[in-house]
Amino acid sequence: MSNVADFDAVELIRLKRDGGHLPAAAIDWLINAYTAGHVTDEQMSAMAMAIFFRGLERDELSRWTAAMIATGERMDFSSLTRPTVDKHSTGGVGDKITLPLAPLVAACGAAVPQLSGRGLGHTGGTLDKLEAIPGWRASLSNAEMLAQLEEVGAVICAAGAGLAPADKKLYALRDVTATIESVPMISASIMSKKIAEGTASLVLDVKTGAGAFMKTREQSRALATTMVEIGKDAGVNTVALITAMDAPLGRTAGNGVEVAESVEVLAGGGPSDVVELTIALAQEMLTCAGIDADPAQVLASGKAMDTWKAMIRAQGGDPDAPLPTPKHTEVVTADADGYLADLDAMAVGLAAWRLGAGRAKQGDPVQAAAGVTWHAGIGDPVRTGQPLFSLHTDTPERIERARQALAGAATIGSAPVTPGPIVLERIS
Amino acid sequence: MSNVADFDAVELIRLKRDGGHLPAAAIDWLINAYTAGHVTDEQMSAMAMAIFFRGLERDELSRWTAAMIATGERMDFSSLTRPTVDKHSTGGVGDKITLPLAPLVAACGAAVPQLSGRGLGHTGGTLDKLEAIPGWRASLSNAEMLAQLEEVGAVICAAGAGLAPADKKLYALRDVTATIESVPMISASIMSKKIAEGTASLVLDVKTGAGAFMKTREQSRALATTMVEIGKDAGVNTVALITAMDAPLGRTAGNGVEVAESVEVLAGGGPSDVVELTIALAQEMLTCAGIDADPAQVLASGKAMDTWKAMIRAQGGDPDAPLPTPKHTEVVTADADGYLADLDAMAVGLAAWRLGAGRAKQGDPVQAAAGVTWHAGIGDPVRTGQPLFSLHTDTPERIERARQALAGAATIGSAPVTPGPIVLERIS
Repeated sequence: MSNVADFDAVELIRLKRDGGHLPAAAIDWLINAYTAGHVTDEQMSAMAMAIFFRGLERDELSRWTAAMIATGERMDFSSLTRPTVDKHSTGGVGDKITLPLAPLVAACGAAVPQLSGRGLGHTGGTLDKLEAIPGWRASLSNAEMLAQLEEVGAVICAAGAGLAPADKKLYALRDVTATIESVPMISASIMSKKIAEGTASLVLDVKTGAGAFMKTREQSRALATTMVEIGKDAGVNTVALITAMDAPLGRTAGNGVEVAESVEVLAGGGPSDVVELTIALAQEMLTCAGIDADPAQVLASGKAMDTWKAMIRAQGGDPDAPLPTPKHTEVVTADADGYLADLDAMAVGLAAWRLGAGRAKQGDPVQAAAGVTWHAGIGDPVRTGQPLFSLHTDTPERIERARQALAGAATIGSAPVTPGPIVLERIS
Repeated sequence: MSNVADFDAVELIRLKRDGGHLPAAAIDWLINAYTAGHVTDEQMSAMAMAIFFRGLERDELSRWTAAMIATGERMDFSSLTRPTVDKHSTGGVGDKITLPLAPLVAACGAAVPQLSGRGLGHTGGTLDKLEAIPGWRASLSNAEMLAQLEEVGAVICAAGAGLAPADKKLYALRDVTATIESVPMISASIMSKKIAEGTASLVLDVKTGAGAFMKTREQSRALATTMVEIGKDAGVNTVALITAMDAPLGRTAGNGVEVAESVEVLAGGGPSDVVELTIALAQEMLTCAGIDADPAQVLASGKAMDTWKAMIRAQGGDPDAPLPTPKHTEVVTADADGYLADLDAMAVGLAAWRLGAGRAKQGDPVQAAAGVTWHAGIGDPVRTGQPLFSLHTDTPERIERARQALAGAATIGSAPVTPGPIVLERIS
């Protein structure tokens, strides 16, 4: 970076601490100097905590995000003949929507460059799920990605380390300094990577409820609004849906089990909540991309399944090969008659994680066949002794702690229950 | 530290960030783990910023202070036959009060263990001032200190690095992360060192006004109250006076010039504000120490001067040797007739610093003869062309910037002015 004015980190921290407004040039300097190591970790953590309390105004935050993007490469999809549109979910248990959604939207004519991550903690990672498919590989060169986007229309692959390296450094710092839970910092982190990805349009799936990072509608609305503003300020056509994450999505949480469920949806079946959310997000993505198509019809036609198979094959996978089966499956049965009134998403996520579907720290291996299947959805009738959960793992010593996680996770009521809507609100 | 429960730094930062109360054992663990390097600088700076916003309750702060003291040695003056009493000032321009005060209180029968520091920025350091006296040395062993306290009654010397090392590390961190300006953190920093010093009683001189760190009476009262609470919780008999620091104290700011002014006071003369504050603080210290004496009478008797000379000689200094004279002195004259209505303490402090009396960074040398003398006090009549300031330095190239600092520093009004009181409030 040349011709950047010099600022004093202590003065900038004090300015934000006291509720002031960071000038644009100061933000550019701060992010660059931090990435280069001239502003220290202890200074940036004090700044992050000051931002936790004082926030960032819209123009500060858009500049902050742009400065983080400018520390790395920005992908360029302008040579594609298809319009690009991407989706990002803030993460929930059983959220496999990317898997049927990307090929469905591609089958309607868009290019979907879905750069994804691996799971850490109770929510799974899209790449971990797809790696359950024999032969499939997550890493693509930029040239491979571009070719696949043009030919197939959908790519789900690993985000390169070259996108927004400032965010990677800052996120690791926030993780050890209790400064993760800040709406502007979360927004800048997500949006810097999504904007650097080069998509023209972006649909955000902001989860809300007991199983989500944001527990209340108000928090979720604040996060959605902030991210939409950043997207628009960066010239990306951005829309957000706020969607329910009290119960987990679908009927499976894990790796291979979620792929199987996604394939059911692509085949025209699958749990109704997964189908509903896939169609709703597809409709938003197509509208953003300016494509007039009916995703429900395209799904029913089998074209989305064709695109799925082409996408998996293009990355070395065999979409027709059987998915790995777990060495051990144990069934937990219902202990009452009635209707499934509530299912604790956090407990289900924790159980899947304990069975080996997720990792405790970066770099740990995951089990392709580990996970949880639940045999009733919200509102379904349940009878004593009927299978409620199936626990899948290759390592049976993990089962006991998964059982503990699920103790009390299912609430069986005596009166019938109607499941609530999945899509709660739209923010554009 | 054995038998200390293990805590998680991120959880503790989050607890304080969200307005929670840190358990006593968690505070002990945090301070120890930080001093040992197990809690990182970036974690402690996030905690410091969270404390800036959320504060510390009285019991948290007293424990925090005690934990900082426990990281180092604590002095023991219990073998002395005299009662110990110390003074601490939060710092002001021209504040040489320690110099006449310590021997005065010692001459009344107390032991005054005045562990002091060097100056940084616009307020001078007591040790820098005394080092203007030929031969005087600031470093004493604990045994030398104890012997001098018993025989002479007063010691002004450098605080050893062994007192509250956690504070030293934490202060350096706060300095680069804009977390200095926090009443609980300032209080813990000052009080940890003063309590570790082992004094039985302590009188705090909390400055307030334009030339002080705390600009408003309310801020100064909060700081004074907090420090008095910490002192009492640690079993130290603690009282605070809030005193005026709008105009600088006395008629000099610098090193040798402040020693000379202090000797004038000990000889029965000197500026009235310096005499008034010295007597007021001495009276508080004697009351705390349970000594029934009249400090004004003892000052007038010459006994305080005898103790001063004994104190200087005990540390290798020659109290009768001439003080160093500056190589250059330049006079700034008044440009109006009237009465001195206001004198900007910050401007005077900055001028003295620019002339070479202070240092820009730790370890820099200071000039013994550098400083500013002002020839009128608040309310004094002034005539055009009369000397207003004398600027002293060994390096004439410094004079221009000192002149700039003083431009507009003196306000000359047409109506007579009565100077306000020095002691504004007492907090016990």
